[in-house]
Amino acid sequence: MEVIVIFLGAENEGNIGSLARVMKNFGLYKLILASPKAKIGVEAFKSAMHAQDVLKSARVLESFDKAIEDVDFVIGTTARLGWNYNVLRTPIFPDQLSILREREGKIAIVFGRESSGLTNEELNKCDVVLTIPANPEYPTLNITHAAAIIFYELFKILGKPMTERFRCATKVEKDKILEVFGKLLEEIEYPSEKLQIAFRVFRNIVGRAFISGREAHTLIGVLRRTVTLIKRLKQRKQNK
Amino acid sequence: MEVIVIFLGAENEGNIGSLARVMKNFGLYKLILASPKAKIGVEAFKSAMHAQDVLKSARVLESFDKAIEDVDFVIGTTARLGWNYNVLRTPIFPDQLSILREREGKIAIVFGRESSGLTNEELNKCDVVLTIPANPEYPTLNITHAAAIIFYELFKILGKPMTERFRCATKVEKDKILEVFGKLLEEIEYPSEKLQIAFRVFRNIVGRAFISGREAHTLIGVLRRTVTLIKRLKQRKQNK
Repeated sequence: MEVIVIFLGAENEGNIGSLARVMKNFGLYKLILASPKAKIGVEAFKSAMHAQDVLKSARVLESFDKAIEDVDFVIGTTARLGWNYNVLRTPIFPDQLSILREREGKIAIVFGRESSGLTNEELNKCDVVLTIPANPEYPTLNITHAAAIIFYELFKILGKPMTERFRCATKVEKDKILEVFGKLLEEIEYPSEKLQIAFRVFRNIVGRAFISGREAHTLIGVLRRTVTLIKRLKQRKQNK
Repeated sequence: MEVIVIFLGAENEGNIGSLARVMKNFGLYKLILASPKAKIGVEAFKSAMHAQDVLKSARVLESFDKAIEDVDFVIGTTARLGWNYNVLRTPIFPDQLSILREREGKIAIVFGRESSGLTNEELNKCDVVLTIPANPEYPTLNITHAAAIIFYELFKILGKPMTERFRCATKVEKDKILEVFGKLLEEIEYPSEKLQIAFRVFRNIVGRAFISGREAHTLIGVLRRTVTLIKRLKQRKQNK
C-alpha cells in the first residue's frame, strides 16, 4: 500500500514544514500541496527540521481534483462534526484505520486549510471522512497535531509485517458500482426527493467498507443483473 | 483520576502555547512549567489559540522535584530509545496507557526540553517511561506532536466515547438488510453456485462499513422497493 499526504490550500509555511517533519517521523515521504496559498520557503524548511527531503520532493498541484485523480482511496479529515452533522456522512476514527491493514492500493490522507478545513464539496469527494474524538469545548486541533495522531495510528498498522494482502477496489471499480447503483435507482423509479440521499448513503457505505476488488466485482454483478432483469421484464410487458 | 501536564525546561514560547492548545483539545487543563527557560508571553498566547484559559492558569515552579512532589504516578516521555537503551527501563507505548483506566490518583505526564529531552536522572524519577513508536530514520517528534498523540490515547481511555452520537445500526436492522438482499438475489435468480459468495460479500460490506441506523433504513428502502418492483413486473407478465 502506498500512502500519500495531501495538504489542501495550505496557509502557513511553518505548518507545511511541521507536517513534513511528522510525516517522516512516521515513515511517510510523499507530500502533495494542492492549490497552496503559502509557499515552500525558508520558514517551511526551518520547521521541517530533519525532514528536508520530504519538503524537497513535495509536489505542488493546482487543484484537489488533480491531486486525487489516480488515488484509489481518499481519506478526508475534519473536526467539524457538530454543526455539520446533517450534511456529513458517519465518520471513522483514527484507530479504525486498522481496516487498511493488508490492503493494496494508493491511499491519500487529506488535510484542509488551517483556518476553515475542507469544504463540504471537498469532503464529498473523499471515500471516507475521518475525525479525531476530542473535547467538545474545543475540538479543533492544530492541523499538524491531527496529522501526528493519524500518522501514528497508520504507523501502528503499516509498521507491522503484512502476511496476506487484499487489493483495495480501485477508483474505477468503485465508480462502476455507483454507476450501476444509479441505474438501479432509476429503474425502480426511486422518489426523486430521496434520490440524492440514497445515492450518498450507498456511496458512503461503499467508501467506509474499504471494499476489495473481488467484492466490488460481486457487487457490480448483482446490481447489473438486477437492472438487466428489470429492464427485460419492463420490455416484455410493453411488447405484449 | 486527575491528570496534570509538566513541561520541563521549556525553551520555546510557541511550544508552550501549542501544548496548552492540544491539552484543551483533549480535555486537560492543568499545566505546570518546571524551571522553564522561555516565559509565557505574547507568542505563547498567540499559539494557544482558544486555550488562553489553560495558559493563564498554568503554574511555574522552580524544579522538577517540586512539580512532582504530590503526584501519585509520574509518566516520563522520551524518544531516545536507541543510544540510550541500556540506561533506560523497558518503555510503554501510548496505547498501553489503557492501564490507567479506572484508576484513582494524580497522574503527571512529563515532557522534556525541546533540544535534548529529559535527562536520565529525570527519567529515573518517573514511575514509567513512555515512548512513541516511530520511523527509526527520524524518531524525534516535535514535543507538541508527541503530546498530541499521548493526550489522544488518554482521551480514548478517560473521555466519553464520541461514537454514541452516531447510533450504529442494530443487529435487527442489519439482519433486515440481509434478509431483503437475500430476497433480491432470489428474485434476480442469481446463479446458485455464486449465491453464497454474493450473500457473504454483502454481509461483509455491511459489517465493515459500521453503518448507522439511518443508513440502514435507506438501504432497506432501496432494496425492498427493488424486490417489490420485480415481483410486480413478473406478476403482470404472468397475468397476461
